[in-house]
Amino acid sequence: MAGLLEPDAALAQVFAAVPPARSVSLPPGDCLGLVLAADATACTDLPPFDRAMMDGYAIRLADAGAAVELLGEIAAGDGADRVPLQVGQAYPIMTGAPVPPGAEAVVPHEQTRRQGQQICLPERIRPGANIVPRAGECRAGHAWARAGAVVTPMTLAAALGVGAAHLEVHPRPRVAVIATGSELAADPSAAGQIRDTNGPMLGAMFQEAGASVQRQVIGDDAEALLAGLQSISDADVVVLTGGVSAGTHDEVPGVLRRLGAEVLFHKVAQRPGKPLLVARLGRHLLFGLPGNPLAAHLCACRYVLPALRRLARLPHIPVSGRGVLRTTLPANSEHTWFLPALIEGGSVLPLLPFSSADLVQPHQANAYLRLDPGAVEAPAGTEITYTRIGVDAWAR
Amino acid sequence: MAGLLEPDAALAQVFAAVPPARSVSLPPGDCLGLVLAADATACTDLPPFDRAMMDGYAIRLADAGAAVELLGEIAAGDGADRVPLQVGQAYPIMTGAPVPPGAEAVVPHEQTRRQGQQICLPERIRPGANIVPRAGECRAGHAWARAGAVVTPMTLAAALGVGAAHLEVHPRPRVAVIATGSELAADPSAAGQIRDTNGPMLGAMFQEAGASVQRQVIGDDAEALLAGLQSISDADVVVLTGGVSAGTHDEVPGVLRRLGAEVLFHKVAQRPGKPLLVARLGRHLLFGLPGNPLAAHLCACRYVLPALRRLARLPHIPVSGRGVLRTTLPANSEHTWFLPALIEGGSVLPLLPFSSADLVQPHQANAYLRLDPGAVEAPAGTEITYTRIGVDAWAR
Repeated sequence: MAGLLEPDAALAQVFAAVPPARSVSLPPGDCLGLVLAADATACTDLPPFDRAMMDGYAIRLADAGAAVELLGEIAAGDGADRVPLQVGQAYPIMTGAPVPPGAEAVVPHEQTRRQGQQICLPERIRPGANIVPRAGECRAGHAWARAGAVVTPMTLAAALGVGAAHLEVHPRPRVAVIATGSELAADPSAAGQIRDTNGPMLGAMFQEAGASVQRQVIGDDAEALLAGLQSISDADVVVLTGGVSAGTHDEVPGVLRRLGAEVLFHKVAQRPGKPLLVARLGRHLLFGLPGNPLAAHLCACRYVLPALRRLARLPHIPVSGRGVLRTTLPANSEHTWFLPALIEGGSVLPLLPFSSADLVQPHQANAYLRLDPGAVEAPAGTEITYTRIGVDAWAR
Repeated sequence: MAGLLEPDAALAQVFAAVPPARSVSLPPGDCLGLVLAADATACTDLPPFDRAMMDGYAIRLADAGAAVELLGEIAAGDGADRVPLQVGQAYPIMTGAPVPPGAEAVVPHEQTRRQGQQICLPERIRPGANIVPRAGECRAGHAWARAGAVVTPMTLAAALGVGAAHLEVHPRPRVAVIATGSELAADPSAAGQIRDTNGPMLGAMFQEAGASVQRQVIGDDAEALLAGLQSISDADVVVLTGGVSAGTHDEVPGVLRRLGAEVLFHKVAQRPGKPLLVARLGRHLLFGLPGNPLAAHLCACRYVLPALRRLARLPHIPVSGRGVLRTTLPANSEHTWFLPALIEGGSVLPLLPFSSADLVQPHQANAYLRLDPGAVEAPAGTEITYTRIGVDAWAR
């Protein structure tokens, strides 16, 4: 098997083939979790008017220490079109309300004293106290968020606050998932038929990564697969599972040749997932994953998800860490072996599958272990490196 | 201010008031990210038939080292109703196809040699080689996943593989978000009006945490708020923002009294977010968050999200870590101060807001710092503890 591509070289080839990120203009509410493609500029001042930060009284500084007459209350939501405040007067005012013309500070209730129809103000009042001046948080035209920033819930609130109708972002990657195999049936009542598990699993993984996903199932039929691939026009990434080996019914390599795809590599020195194929097909980056579910999962974690996140300009390096083996790890043979594991605190439990088709034993995995070719048996208690999988697996 | 509830005591009261988790039966595809409420039992054997793991030949062990006659090929998706395999014969067979009656191993192509119409088998063949026996991964009736496990994409695939039509899970928490304030307008063209930023921000935070969210905006009007709260029937958690202080137009405390709510606490020794109110209102847990956006964000991070995750039986303790200050942190006064910060690698950049209403400066925060009452100024270079915020902030 000398000459097979090593896993790290394969990943580097995938990264080099990721298409350029697109850029679109979307309403802020549709941008959560996406990355800004351009600096965002404020459309309006924030706040749009001098705003009271406390419930209290809008006052003139000249009245510090004096008693003042109260005018009509200003509530949040009221307009600012009041008679200008004169010395000897104060407006009762509520948090969030516009400060009236002439007012130089807002004094909170608890710093005042009632005296008949008047109130007594404290001796010392800081100019501008408890007023957020118009544009104090952000001025119209100011670049308040930088290209490359992720849109968080707080970013969404800030965008609405500064009057943004749209944000320029790298959109969700569009992924077409095609599960191939004549044995795949929605209701596997017929002998020899099984349920498609790879399509839903991969769709869920890509959706968790922020992609929008379209799925189809196609039998082991070259013409149907050709038609299926030709029907995909708007996907950034196409992910096939099954049909990538060298068997009589493995139609993927032949169909890709007929479509003029540029195959970047086919087969990687790893298990599971040795038959992995990666190609450029027109504008699409195409992954041919093995049909064995665990192999499809590993290849999606290790090659497809980083590509999707890179396409969205999100962090794409998974978190790794070190922990202590709870059980013995068997020796490895000639290829790099990726093994699902459950990390709990500092302990690492390898979840040995029954075969590379098996997802039942490893379904709780939150990491993969990587065993180099020829690695010797590692007894329980050995310290080992793991790489996280899942939505919270990406280093910032 | 002696006698105000401390932040940790407030959080403990919130946890004690989280309602019991509900349990529902949902199709596996709707369970992603949810926690199993009961052990999941396999409905069918997996695989449902003896399955070939490789492309090759289904053979009899007695033929090891001999040449055998080839019968008709068995492809994936074919039925298993073949004439039983006799000594001297082999079926060509594809990965995923059902192994025919009588076959004792599958020998891959590359271990065989073509000899006219026959093929020569290797000398040594392991019994059962390259066959996953029926139920090898999981037997019908077996509890393949335990209560408390999170449904991952792999769990989804395993559930479909073992024929599960439904899974018993703790459902998404249902949250009703009510932004209060007469100044809130969808299009703030009128003077004194502003856009609602808290409602969309909180909705996004709770959706990121897996909750299903319904939002409404209500003016500072006790009757409207009363009607709004009475109209909520199916929410687990109600989150109000604004109107929780002691001002003339802070209608929340009075309306809660009229509704017979049990107020657990009102006001916490913290900034921002001192006016926080938490109550039981019938079956609902109710949070009255301040209307200042940053205060609402802090209270949602620190009190609401952990409650929602606990309700869903998800991990609810945020990740914390230590890093080195890039800028000086000012001294703190009498209450615990929570300050947004950006963590990059091991460096901690405090994002000092202009006021507790300000989300523009801190919008890239991925953590909060916590300063104890009376903490002295901390110069750049000081090591400090932070607590993560966001979807990937929860310790497992």
